[in-house]
Amino acid sequence: MMSDISAQEIVGLRKWLYRHLQPSAWNKDGLSPLNRFIFVVICLAVAVAVLESEPAIYQGREKWFFAAEMVFGSIFLVEYLARVWTSAENPAYGGGLRGTLRYIFSLPAIIDLLAMSTLFLVFVGNETSILRLFRLIRILSLAKLGRYSSAIRAMAEAVKSRRYELLMSLAIACMLLLTSSTLLYIVEGDAQPAVFGSIPRAMWWSIATLTTVGYGDVVPATVIGKLLAGVTAITGIGLIAMPTGILAAAFSDAIQRQREAKKHKEPVGQG
Amino acid sequence: MMSDISAQEIVGLRKWLYRHLQPSAWNKDGLSPLNRFIFVVICLAVAVAVLESEPAIYQGREKWFFAAEMVFGSIFLVEYLARVWTSAENPAYGGGLRGTLRYIFSLPAIIDLLAMSTLFLVFVGNETSILRLFRLIRILSLAKLGRYSSAIRAMAEAVKSRRYELLMSLAIACMLLLTSSTLLYIVEGDAQPAVFGSIPRAMWWSIATLTTVGYGDVVPATVIGKLLAGVTAITGIGLIAMPTGILAAAFSDAIQRQREAKKHKEPVGQG
Amino acid sequence: MMSDISAQEIVGLRKWLYRHLQPSAWNKDGLSPLNRFIFVVICLAVAVAVLESEPAIYQGREKWFFAAEMVFGSIFLVEYLARVWTSAENPAYGGGLRGTLRYIFSLPAIIDLLAMSTLFLVFVGNETSILRLFRLIRILSLAKLGRYSSAIRAMAEAVKSRRYELLMSLAIACMLLLTSSTLLYIVEGDAQPAVFGSIPRAMWWSIATLTTVGYGDVVPATVIGKLLAGVTAITGIGLIAMPTGILAAAFSDAIQRQREAKKHKEPVGQG
Amino acid sequence: MMSDISAQEIVGLRKWLYRHLQPSAWNKDGLSPLNRFIFVVICLAVAVAVLESEPAIYQGREKWFFAAEMVFGSIFLVEYLARVWTSAENPAYGGGLRGTLRYIFSLPAIIDLLAMSTLFLVFVGNETSILRLFRLIRILSLAKLGRYSSAIRAMAEAVKSRRYELLMSLAIACMLLLTSSTLLYIVEGDAQPAVFGSIPRAMWWSIATLTTVGYGDVVPATVIGKLLAGVTAITGIGLIAMPTGILAAAFSDAIQRQREAKKHKEPVGQG
Repeated sequence: MMSDISAQEIVGLRKWLYRHLQPSAWNKDGLSPLNRFIFVVICLAVAVAVLESEPAIYQGREKWFFAAEMVFGSIFLVEYLARVWTSAENPAYGGGLRGTLRYIFSLPAIIDLLAMSTLFLVFVGNETSILRLFRLIRILSLAKLGRYSSAIRAMAEAVKSRRYELLMSLAIACMLLLTSSTLLYIVEGDAQPAVFGSIPRAMWWSIATLTTVGYGDVVPATVIGKLLAGVTAITGIGLIAMPTGILAAAFSDAIQRQREAKKHKEPVGQG
Repeated sequence: MMSDISAQEIVGLRKWLYRHLQPSAWNKDGLSPLNRFIFVVICLAVAVAVLESEPAIYQGREKWFFAAEMVFGSIFLVEYLARVWTSAENPAYGGGLRGTLRYIFSLPAIIDLLAMSTLFLVFVGNETSILRLFRLIRILSLAKLGRYSSAIRAMAEAVKSRRYELLMSLAIACMLLLTSSTLLYIVEGDAQPAVFGSIPRAMWWSIATLTTVGYGDVVPATVIGKLLAGVTAITGIGLIAMPTGILAAAFSDAIQRQREAKKHKEPVGQG
Repeated sequence: MMSDISAQEIVGLRKWLYRHLQPSAWNKDGLSPLNRFIFVVICLAVAVAVLESEPAIYQGREKWFFAAEMVFGSIFLVEYLARVWTSAENPAYGGGLRGTLRYIFSLPAIIDLLAMSTLFLVFVGNETSILRLFRLIRILSLAKLGRYSSAIRAMAEAVKSRRYELLMSLAIACMLLLTSSTLLYIVEGDAQPAVFGSIPRAMWWSIATLTTVGYGDVVPATVIGKLLAGVTAITGIGLIAMPTGILAAAFSDAIQRQREAKKHKEPVGQG
Repeated sequence: MMSDISAQEIVGLRKWLYRHLQPSAWNKDGLSPLNRFIFVVICLAVAVAVLESEPAIYQGREKWFFAAEMVFGSIFLVEYLARVWTSAENPAYGGGLRGTLRYIFSLPAIIDLLAMSTLFLVFVGNETSILRLFRLIRILSLAKLGRYSSAIRAMAEAVKSRRYELLMSLAIACMLLLTSSTLLYIVEGDAQPAVFGSIPRAMWWSIATLTTVGYGDVVPATVIGKLLAGVTAITGIGLIAMPTGILAAAFSDAIQRQREAKKHKEPVGQG
């Protein structure tokens, strides 16, 4: 036990900060004011990264964008340090120095570290390819939102509970993709070698048709090719119907379970 | 209490008019004859506003369209005045003069006022930009239909009951949109700078692909770009499946609740 | 009562023919051999009408196609006369001469009469416009299939049971269509007057986007136009989700009702 | 009974091999190591067949591809012989020599035989048309996966349980296809004879619209044509909603049956 008052104060501050930084430790509804602020900063940082990539917006405003990045980077740096410091309070990481170390190498901490990388933009020249990678990293700060969205995680779990069926329909989709592109390759390969001259080339058309996107940049020219394309398009509807049906059943199932759980709590009558 | 017979007659007329104007006050099935007439006039006014915007139809018939607008505008003016007058009878606004004032500043009344604006077309010149805004306002008279469609409101409520899940899938859609446009920007930015040269530019392609609209005006050119486009298109199917599944479960839930409500009323047998 | 043996034989023949012609009067499973034959003839007649419209197939084979039409027309003529004759046996039309008269003016009989019209092709010249209308009529012989498909009728009833909700989503679709085309007309009208210069013109783009068909022949050019197009495309997903959700709930409801009906028949055990 | 030890050993080996080759005979979870190896080889063989069709990949690597094909073909040959030999152990084919003969003419054995055909590539020249057919056959080795995927079979059964309803919606789709292409042929036939000049030609546009693929290579030009196209596109949404609703109900039904089956096993309490 610590006897020094000042150390106690520091521990108290750390506990207070932990409660405000860790969404699960916040005892009121919604997000803490601090987390709400960080949430807004993340959204702004992503918006700035998106707008910055457009030359028409960026040119002539380089300094403003640089300043914004430095501000967001600094806030993320302070947030990162605070999260590392308070990670000792987090029982999920075991607590103490080992807990802090464990936290530093956890996925959320690494994402935070990456999102901070905008600060080091100073040392990067004007090479476009590196700049682009940096922008990708900044868009990655979206992943920081994962901390707040218990709802997204709930939804992901709903999808996960049917991952087997969804993977199945993906496997069926792959088989359909292979079959239809092989057939179109055989039928249209001679007529349009540039776009149907090999199975991988025919796949581009096949995926656009099966998903009903239908860009129209590649279209079969022969009669048999068009017939097969029609069959592929109709099959594509089935491809959409399959995951939709699975998810509809999953959601419907989850709702019914909730209602039944309620029923068991409040007895309807004596049997 | 009023002793003057003539005043009593006016109050009686107001009550009668209120019953005929306010759908919820009508004691028979469906709409009152007066409301049915207003319903048809709204539809006609919208149709006229749509057709008028087409020069091939408008030119040479300017006077007829002007006359139609004046007629519809006058009917809406009379309707507006009648609704303001009878609003004193509406318990929802408190009744009396204060009720009337409250009604005047309510959304339905403001929509009615806007829909009437065609009457002031006389004072507007032939400037196209102002004419277009006027047409938009006239299309807005569609919103007047909101008063009659208890069914649309019921449907909106069904959607509203799942607004949280639907917002979630919208948030996921936004993340997918950001991710796919960033990736395509990195991969295709050099090959097609005009359409993939920035993240906002790539978003146009991305949204057309994720929603499976697939205009085909922008299409990736590189092999990696096409691969990522294929993944985006398949993800887009999931994006369609998500809200469909949620709404399917919502509707299915609503129906089951109705059936169970029925069951509780008519006991099936002795337990 | 008839005493003449020959008349009795005729009545017996009529009864026998009625059993073979009227699907609901057939006491075995499936279709009677006669109806199966007519079913095949209808399909063949439609296929011939479809192929005939293609000059590459039709030219040089005019006589064969004419012969086929004469054969199909004659079969339909004999079928029509037989149905008229046996309609006196059909209790749905009241029986007797009045029943026959009622049948002649019923929808199925009129469809049969129209499908027979190919016989009168002899008197029609080679005018393309009339020939096309004739072909449409021959495709109409598809409607003759309605007599056999109790399943299609069952499905139509399932859709009909939700016609109110489906009409609602159609109404919402119309409103979205109007709103999005008006907005695009205002925003893109100056940039692309040929395709967005009026609300009806903008509707063509709008309907292709809302239904996620996305031909790509018309695409907004301005930034605000593209933003609105993105919103329209996402709204279009909702538009697909709505009827899908309604139909999914309707089918799910129908199945559950069937299962519950079964449960009530076979008691599971003593409570 | 065999007394010869060596023969007994052979029978023992055959039983051991049968257990490792036949997925249903494997008494542990998942696939046997041998089947896992074959599974990977099938996937590799398909991938090689796909890549080989692309000249940019194939040219200059002919020998490597030939070697890979020989290796995969040899593995499939050994697998085929082993499966034929051990088929005597399979009770599904009756056992003994007659069982082996029955197995040789069963569908899985014929698929295996076809997938082996790559071995005979030596005797085929460089004629492209024959090479393409050979590639199709090699893609067919995908069908060999059918042996392993009990899940795909389960899914296929779910679809099969609603095959009647799904066939119905396919029949309705065909009717819509015929009706919309006939109408567009009549309306647009004169304006665009190349793409709407016959019903089969108009079908290409019609199928692309009804499935909401919307390539955009063919688009109606007249006002009435565009109106009909809009109706067709909206009908297409219904066409997607129909099978989706059916499958959603089927999956939801299957899940509920499972839950009810569980409920009957584990009694919730005393009534």
